[in-house]
Amino acid sequence: MTKILVLGAGVMGSALCVPALKNSNSNQVTLVGSPLDDAIIDSINATRHHPTLDADLPDNLAAIKNNECSNELLQSQDIIIIGVSSAGMDWATDKIRHANASPQLVSLVTKGLTTNPQANRPPLTYAHTLPAILQIDANKLVGIGGPCIARELALGVPTRVIFGSQDTNSANTLRKHFQTDTYSIQTTDEVVQLEACAALKNFLCIGVSTMLGAYPLGDTHAKNPAAALFNQAVVELRLLSEWIACVDEGKHTDQNTQREMVAFDLAGMGDLHVTVGGGRNSRLGNYLGQGNTLSSVLADQMLNVTVEGVDTGRQIHAGVEAACLSGKLNSDDLPLTLAILKCISTGGNFEFNFTSLPA
Amino acid sequence: MTKILVLGAGVMGSALCVPALKNSNSNQVTLVGSPLDDAIIDSINATRHHPTLDADLPDNLAAIKNNECSNELLQSQDIIIIGVSSAGMDWATDKIRHANASPQLVSLVTKGLTTNPQANRPPLTYAHTLPAILQIDANKLVGIGGPCIARELALGVPTRVIFGSQDTNSANTLRKHFQTDTYSIQTTDEVVQLEACAALKNFLCIGVSTMLGAYPLGDTHAKNPAAALFNQAVVELRLLSEWIACVDEGKHTDQNTQREMVAFDLAGMGDLHVTVGGGRNSRLGNYLGQGNTLSSVLADQMLNVTVEGVDTGRQIHAGVEAACLSGKLNSDDLPLTLAILKCISTGGNFEFNFTSLPA
Repeated sequence: MTKILVLGAGVMGSALCVPALKNSNSNQVTLVGSPLDDAIIDSINATRHHPTLDADLPDNLAAIKNNECSNELLQSQDIIIIGVSSAGMDWATDKIRHANASPQLVSLVTKGLTTNPQANRPPLTYAHTLPAILQIDANKLVGIGGPCIARELALGVPTRVIFGSQDTNSANTLRKHFQTDTYSIQTTDEVVQLEACAALKNFLCIGVSTMLGAYPLGDTHAKNPAAALFNQAVVELRLLSEWIACVDEGKHTDQNTQREMVAFDLAGMGDLHVTVGGGRNSRLGNYLGQGNTLSSVLADQMLNVTVEGVDTGRQIHAGVEAACLSGKLNSDDLPLTLAILKCISTGGNFEFNFTSLPA
Repeated sequence: MTKILVLGAGVMGSALCVPALKNSNSNQVTLVGSPLDDAIIDSINATRHHPTLDADLPDNLAAIKNNECSNELLQSQDIIIIGVSSAGMDWATDKIRHANASPQLVSLVTKGLTTNPQANRPPLTYAHTLPAILQIDANKLVGIGGPCIARELALGVPTRVIFGSQDTNSANTLRKHFQTDTYSIQTTDEVVQLEACAALKNFLCIGVSTMLGAYPLGDTHAKNPAAALFNQAVVELRLLSEWIACVDEGKHTDQNTQREMVAFDLAGMGDLHVTVGGGRNSRLGNYLGQGNTLSSVLADQMLNVTVEGVDTGRQIHAGVEAACLSGKLNSDDLPLTLAILKCISTGGNFEFNFTSLPA
């Protein structure tokens, strides 16, 4: 019996327990709340209902509070999943490190980038930083991407996601313990591109979503502009994620080192599709498309709401500018990225001119 | 002054006259109705309003009926655009051939595939067949793809499309005469892939759209399944369009013959996005997703409605089966294509199992 522990009882961490328990391998699954999740753990144990997920969790899920999670428990796990948002990352990593836990695999659903301490270098993903923070072999780390609204996952609605690890055996092993009839899993060894796409899609979603309501047509709204910018967003996602993963152009043309283009798959195109369909980044884009400034939206309609794509934009801004100057990126190929960055840095209106798209 | 003539006064042909007249090159544009379009031409000339497009056309557009279009007029054109749907193709090509017209460029918005007369070969696109039918140099032919709902184009809502020609000069020339502030044009020399994507996206749209309403969740519906199948549709669109264009896998890895992947751009991903958002193929998919059989939808809710994706499915069926048997295509990579083909050939329910997606 494989022991799986999920750190963080927010919506995504909790939802991931569902396929782990439905999977045919009879996994033993423990959900550990963060210090902020005590009420959620109480609710699950009293009624099986997760209040923010608005879904019932399986009877055989063990749900415990932060202070009930001992070092021994962490040390006994085969697989540890970091199920927090980026705000909870320090708690989760401290917990693993403090216990000296050394599971067979560590996986994460957390999305985010870190500014590179080396000036003028691409930002770092968790695939870069986590092995050192957790003092684990990088081969043990598995990233998770793809279209996956947590509540739908918890309710058993089908989707398809992508697991990535530097060592493909790790992604395949995790897949074996999570795959179900409705949670379909693809694997890749391009974990850095995967993590880059998972973070950047929130950022690019803001730009695409400005077009959702920008051109009202009677009872409905125009669809061409959003489709055109969705397409452009995926094309730019490819350029940015390959830049972050330091994929040189030549790598795609030399047969021996051909690299997958992760942006044109579940972690990029697929996840962007569902992200534009709803959520905080999409809401912000909608407000911008109606002509509001970024500052006014963040001070009014979305006051005190964390918009991950805005944070990601701030993290990549200096690196993108430096890369455009040095020729690592071509600013002509990134009109959508540059328009979103400008909006974030000025706090003003989102301005995009279709004539800025390359020929 | 460049003379542009558009054959067919349906929604797409008529809408294309708008950027041609807004373009800064002072083109002279003539719209020619098919024998079925007399009432439309009368309406345009009386009020400038196009009744099925539900939009006003520019004052300087010359709109004439089929019987007013002389051979001399056709012979005097620099650019002829075939603006009909596939049902009008014979009329348009007869018209050009009968006039012995030899314009600098011929372009088309028509989508469709033809079964290959050689057994077990991929279907043919208009890029394959039109040069011989029109007795023109293949270098003169320009295909048009990308997300473009006709009414939005006519109303000046922005979008971005892709023009393709074997000789890139031809696509660039056409671009010069159509580009406007809101009609942004990219070019490619992969015209066969472009034409294949333009036709196949209607077919694949049927499968993606089954997921739009298949999983109701309270007042809304689940979004993960449609995002997952949108992603899968684009991945399969790449495989099918490269098969039709006879792109061998090696062609992507040898630097000298690197080929663009047109499916991962406007003619594939971008156009599929807008096609899933509405239209006949999407409506059919929605009905199938609600549990109706194809036969019952075509005999009831969509009686006498032409669903182009169904026709395209019938045209590719034998070729796809033969290619899977011969190893040119791998059936494991095409679960969505095969599920749609099965639904079309049996007239039954659309059945898709997420476990059929490759690992």
